[in-house]
Amino acid sequence: MACEFTLTRRVEFSETDMAGIMHFSNFFRFMEAAEHAFFRSLGFSIHPARAHRSLGWPRVHADCDFKHPLRFEDTVEIRLLVRQKKAKSIVYTFIFRKLNEQPPREVARGTLAVACVKRDKTSGKMTGVPIPRTIAGKIDVAPGELLNS
Amino acid sequence: MACEFTLTRRVEFSETDMAGIMHFSNFFRFMEAAEHAFFRSLGFSIHPARAHRSLGWPRVHADCDFKHPLRFEDTVEIRLLVRQKKAKSIVYTFIFRKLNEQPPREVARGTLAVACVKRDKTSGKMTGVPIPRTIAGKIDVAPGELLNS
Amino acid sequence: MACEFTLTRRVEFSETDMAGIMHFSNFFRFMEAAEHAFFRSLGFSIHPARAHRSLGWPRVHADCDFKHPLRFEDTVEIRLLVRQKKAKSIVYTFIFRKLNEQPPREVARGTLAVACVKRDKTSGKMTGVPIPRTIAGKIDVAPGELLNS
Amino acid sequence: MACEFTLTRRVEFSETDMAGIMHFSNFFRFMEAAEHAFFRSLGFSIHPARAHRSLGWPRVHADCDFKHPLRFEDTVEIRLLVRQKKAKSIVYTFIFRKLNEQPPREVARGTLAVACVKRDKTSGKMTGVPIPRTIAGKIDVAPGELLNS
Repeated sequence: MACEFTLTRRVEFSETDMAGIMHFSNFFRFMEAAEHAFFRSLGFSIHPARAHRSLGWPRVHADCDFKHPLRFEDTVEIRLLVRQKKAKSIVYTFIFRKLNEQPPREVARGTLAVACVKRDKTSGKMTGVPIPRTIAGKIDVAPGELLNS
Repeated sequence: MACEFTLTRRVEFSETDMAGIMHFSNFFRFMEAAEHAFFRSLGFSIHPARAHRSLGWPRVHADCDFKHPLRFEDTVEIRLLVRQKKAKSIVYTFIFRKLNEQPPREVARGTLAVACVKRDKTSGKMTGVPIPRTIAGKIDVAPGELLNS
Repeated sequence: MACEFTLTRRVEFSETDMAGIMHFSNFFRFMEAAEHAFFRSLGFSIHPARAHRSLGWPRVHADCDFKHPLRFEDTVEIRLLVRQKKAKSIVYTFIFRKLNEQPPREVARGTLAVACVKRDKTSGKMTGVPIPRTIAGKIDVAPGELLNS
Repeated sequence: MACEFTLTRRVEFSETDMAGIMHFSNFFRFMEAAEHAFFRSLGFSIHPARAHRSLGWPRVHADCDFKHPLRFEDTVEIRLLVRQKKAKSIVYTFIFRKLNEQPPREVARGTLAVACVKRDKTSGKMTGVPIPRTIAGKIDVAPGELLNS
């Protein structure tokens, strides 16, 4: 059972904007990258090639509070914490810390709420389904002290 | 005085992902595009070339609730409504409607909270400043019935 | 029969980088947007929802020469010209002109070569196929004087 | 003196498109990421915060030949080779190999030609300048057998 995961990235040039800082939409891409790496760490793929092929995880909610900007070549730690696990959905908290500063500083904090769905192969229509037990059995909710740290 | 603005876009191929729908990070890019078009409609640029050169509008908060997916070539209306206007910040609500469906359907609803800052030219450091009167004088808060529609 | 198409766009904030200019990768996204709008102008979709569902147009080559930068809120005309039409592929030339300058100035020129393929629904494997006659019959090669203008 | 550099990446979900493969524009972002990592490996930043602040490296040409698609979670090696070094510009070749396939397979090959420029702080205008000796002295042209491999 896992309730957290940490991914580290360096901000790329193409992720900056003319204000000289990382464009805010990339914080959401980074959250998703951490979520997918968390799944890989459990032995799954968020979008498997074969088994569970019709399973999907659309986002139903996303938010982020931006406290300090990130700049080109900054090293950022994205810490994923499982905040809620329901039958058909998961809510993650993400804490962004800039590592190339002493001490490391929290620069942003965000949320992704994702639903587990089955996609109809012909119509593409998505219907909420229970998270498969093989997956749900490996994911645990993080203790409150981590979430409120 | 203006309290709302409407932008229409068509979803592009490069904005889709392998799930066959528009990647969720683009909803945030679309909100920002509507905000910038709103500024242009008032005769300003969010990032002027000369006057107000050191003025910036970093995002302090962003969120979005996703109700229905958007797909390639869908036409989407992004309606911006001014929810709050404070001395140094503005909060916008955005309502996304898919137009190529009868009747048009709300597919997402989001928020951007932006701060007005002055950027130091040498250090790049940003400090909160009052919104210039020429700008604040043209922006009004939307009536509650629009915001809760 | 059509041999050209013109699309106009305004450079968005999220398309700029910290050098203050449009990130070069967006010139390629703009070429593709013009190609897809060209298809729509002929009554087709590059990625149709139903008929021709398994048809795809992967890029086999792309290039671009960058002459002058584009900046935030610049208005750019992307002119598509059909340079070659073969049984299973099309080559397009794209001429980028900045319109908010007198006289308008060519800022970049690029190429996309795309193949017509059939995608196997199970494996995702792509095989080159002849361009359907309904499509090929509407596309013509541009005269040399346009291509060399 | 260095004439090559290798970067490895995993294809992310947000880099795929509805055709189920990595969007072609990301090959160009990956080339640039390898170029910037090459600079870091030499002890430089392509966009330094202080010294050489007004120095920039705009792209004057980019091309890519796409041989096989990349998919979500594929591991790709981007090998940078210095093809040309002139007084005011550098040309790089990039060879993309998919590593999660036995044997690894070349999936794409591309080029970036970049100019060394000085940016005027007030106007933003760029003028070609000789590559600083501290930088040029560390970069070497790759032997022909590597470039033609």
